[in-house]
Amino acid sequence: MENERDLNEQIEMHGKMRIALDLLESCQEFAQMIPEVRTNLVYARESAERTDDVLAIDGRVTVVGGMPHASGDPKFGASSHMARLLLEIRRRDPTIRAGINFANTPSLSRWLEIYCKRKGWVFSVIDRRSEPEAIKEAEGASMPWKVGEAIRAAGGRVPNVFYETGAVGKEPVTVLVGSDPIVVVSEMINLTLEYQRG
Amino acid sequence: MENERDLNEQIEMHGKMRIALDLLESCQEFAQMIPEVRTNLVYARESAERTDDVLAIDGRVTVVGGMPHASGDPKFGASSHMARLLLEIRRRDPTIRAGINFANTPSLSRWLEIYCKRKGWVFSVIDRRSEPEAIKEAEGASMPWKVGEAIRAAGGRVPNVFYETGAVGKEPVTVLVGSDPIVVVSEMINLTLEYQRG
Amino acid sequence: MENERDLNEQIEMHGKMRIALDLLESCQEFAQMIPEVRTNLVYARESAERTDDVLAIDGRVTVVGGMPHASGDPKFGASSHMARLLLEIRRRDPTIRAGINFANTPSLSRWLEIYCKRKGWVFSVIDRRSEPEAIKEAEGASMPWKVGEAIRAAGGRVPNVFYETGAVGKEPVTVLVGSDPIVVVSEMINLTLEYQRG
Amino acid sequence: MENERDLNEQIEMHGKMRIALDLLESCQEFAQMIPEVRTNLVYARESAERTDDVLAIDGRVTVVGGMPHASGDPKFGASSHMARLLLEIRRRDPTIRAGINFANTPSLSRWLEIYCKRKGWVFSVIDRRSEPEAIKEAEGASMPWKVGEAIRAAGGRVPNVFYETGAVGKEPVTVLVGSDPIVVVSEMINLTLEYQRG
Repeated sequence: MENERDLNEQIEMHGKMRIALDLLESCQEFAQMIPEVRTNLVYARESAERTDDVLAIDGRVTVVGGMPHASGDPKFGASSHMARLLLEIRRRDPTIRAGINFANTPSLSRWLEIYCKRKGWVFSVIDRRSEPEAIKEAEGASMPWKVGEAIRAAGGRVPNVFYETGAVGKEPVTVLVGSDPIVVVSEMINLTLEYQRG
Repeated sequence: MENERDLNEQIEMHGKMRIALDLLESCQEFAQMIPEVRTNLVYARESAERTDDVLAIDGRVTVVGGMPHASGDPKFGASSHMARLLLEIRRRDPTIRAGINFANTPSLSRWLEIYCKRKGWVFSVIDRRSEPEAIKEAEGASMPWKVGEAIRAAGGRVPNVFYETGAVGKEPVTVLVGSDPIVVVSEMINLTLEYQRG
Repeated sequence: MENERDLNEQIEMHGKMRIALDLLESCQEFAQMIPEVRTNLVYARESAERTDDVLAIDGRVTVVGGMPHASGDPKFGASSHMARLLLEIRRRDPTIRAGINFANTPSLSRWLEIYCKRKGWVFSVIDRRSEPEAIKEAEGASMPWKVGEAIRAAGGRVPNVFYETGAVGKEPVTVLVGSDPIVVVSEMINLTLEYQRG
Repeated sequence: MENERDLNEQIEMHGKMRIALDLLESCQEFAQMIPEVRTNLVYARESAERTDDVLAIDGRVTVVGGMPHASGDPKFGASSHMARLLLEIRRRDPTIRAGINFANTPSLSRWLEIYCKRKGWVFSVIDRRSEPEAIKEAEGASMPWKVGEAIRAAGGRVPNVFYETGAVGKEPVTVLVGSDPIVVVSEMINLTLEYQRG
């Protein structure tokens, strides 16, 4: 019974990931949104507690032949950073089960703020310069601080889109979250096309 | 409504294919069961009528580094021969939605006959030598004849496993069918392990 | 010294294979020439004696997204059938170091005969129906017979292009051989484009 | 004549890249040395002037199934950052034709300093904090400054290994350069195994 429910959840998750990946890999324009650290697409089980409960692209999404390209297949436990970020967000809003990261530049951030307002989305920023030293150094303390900061900066609401200002040694990236990977990738593509159109 | 039902079917189909493929690609022993024409794994929509309604592995499953390896991703319309075979079988038994092909040798066929008896499965053979010339030459007539012959040779029952005797220019292959790709691949792996164990 | 010569040969072989594969994978038209058993491209060391001395595509060349696609990377020992065929041909003409197999149909064979005449190439056929039973059954005896037959049917000359008539259970394929994989693939593409043009 | 020399150079370059990649992809230990921005392996033509003259891995080297994995095939022009870095180094020392980037941590840097001393290699560091603002902002000015700084900090010698201290928004990486990709990857693997051994 438990096992059957578990298998059904896995089927649904793998199915949605495949369809979302097909969309993403067909969108040439997204290649320019992939950050240096590469993109991952993550999807948490309903009862996710650990990174092993999060489906992600093994090897991340990179650019091959000018197109977005999943290096490996979707696999539970294939992401660390993005998976932990998603797990932390889910503590505040469990309806969020998927997320994707993409590039960040000052001009994209300005554009995103307006785009999010138009969409009725909550947009936020994590200013890494205000991260206390004690937190930077404590193992595992950074993620709760980041997510807390993103929510605080958005007036207590869990954001749909947020970015980190780059810290020393860290590439700044933007993150978009949503209920499942098809929703997240569809919105990612809309956003990409609209941004690049000018 | 129609579209939502359609999307839900695609999600379930892609999810089951991915899980089935993960099983198949992890089974080193299956590498030796892959025929020269390579293996495909096919999965028909509930209302499938054309090969575009059948999900299959783009580029088939081949052997890389000694392991079974899907050359491309699952895609609707990626198979011709196996998809048409499945569509024809489904005219006789619509509960069959998935199938896989694998190697055929005289000794494997003898072993399979006993194995199927033990499993309570229907086993059959298509003797290509009895295929009428008129059918061989008529475009599209071969598949209905083949499936009809497999059922006739099994006393009117739709077989779980069947093989073709090789015709001139055609590699003989064995086919295993079932309700979905997870079931089909699980049975394929059981069969492979038991056969190779001796 | 010996090792350095060996490494230099491997560098040259891998380099030519990569360039040849880039050509082949970019030629959409070739996708239709890939037989059911899939294409392999093989390249023998100068002193090749065993299949481990023959570089080939691991997993063969299949069709993904409508384009020819190498399933794995080039690897010594990755081919059995095509490698043994090449080794046997090299006993008669050691300047031949590379080969590729492709589809065979009666109309292609007729066209190839004329094409080869125009190119000044030797064209031949292996009629499997004349293969003695004793040879079919003896392990390892088939390949020398085949190559001997291809040469005999060409009046004692080693052919540039030859095909096998399909035997029971064997798909008929055509083979083109030459001095290295760049030469072989370039000629394969010329032939493909000219054949498909009409 | 010119074309033949050009083809011969491409053959040799592709051959060495393939052999180097086979080594790298077989070294599980290297997976832990891959930085967030992923590894690239670059190889410049003898007369390289632009990034199109530099062979690199399309999609970079990522980690799939726990192993280093080239996302795409080697391709001229597939790298921007690492290719430009290599071109700049070659202005000071044209015998350097290949390079690889890998992770950087304070403890690895300390270890590398000792390792390089033992090997008789020149080790250097680029302190991004001393980069003039005018250079950061001028298009294309950063790379000459970086390479100049690495040489200056090494007392005027071109280093074998160097790293950048992380700037805001930039992951710090280490770079190892050498005469060709087989040499570079062999040294990379030696270094990796020795570092991980403790």
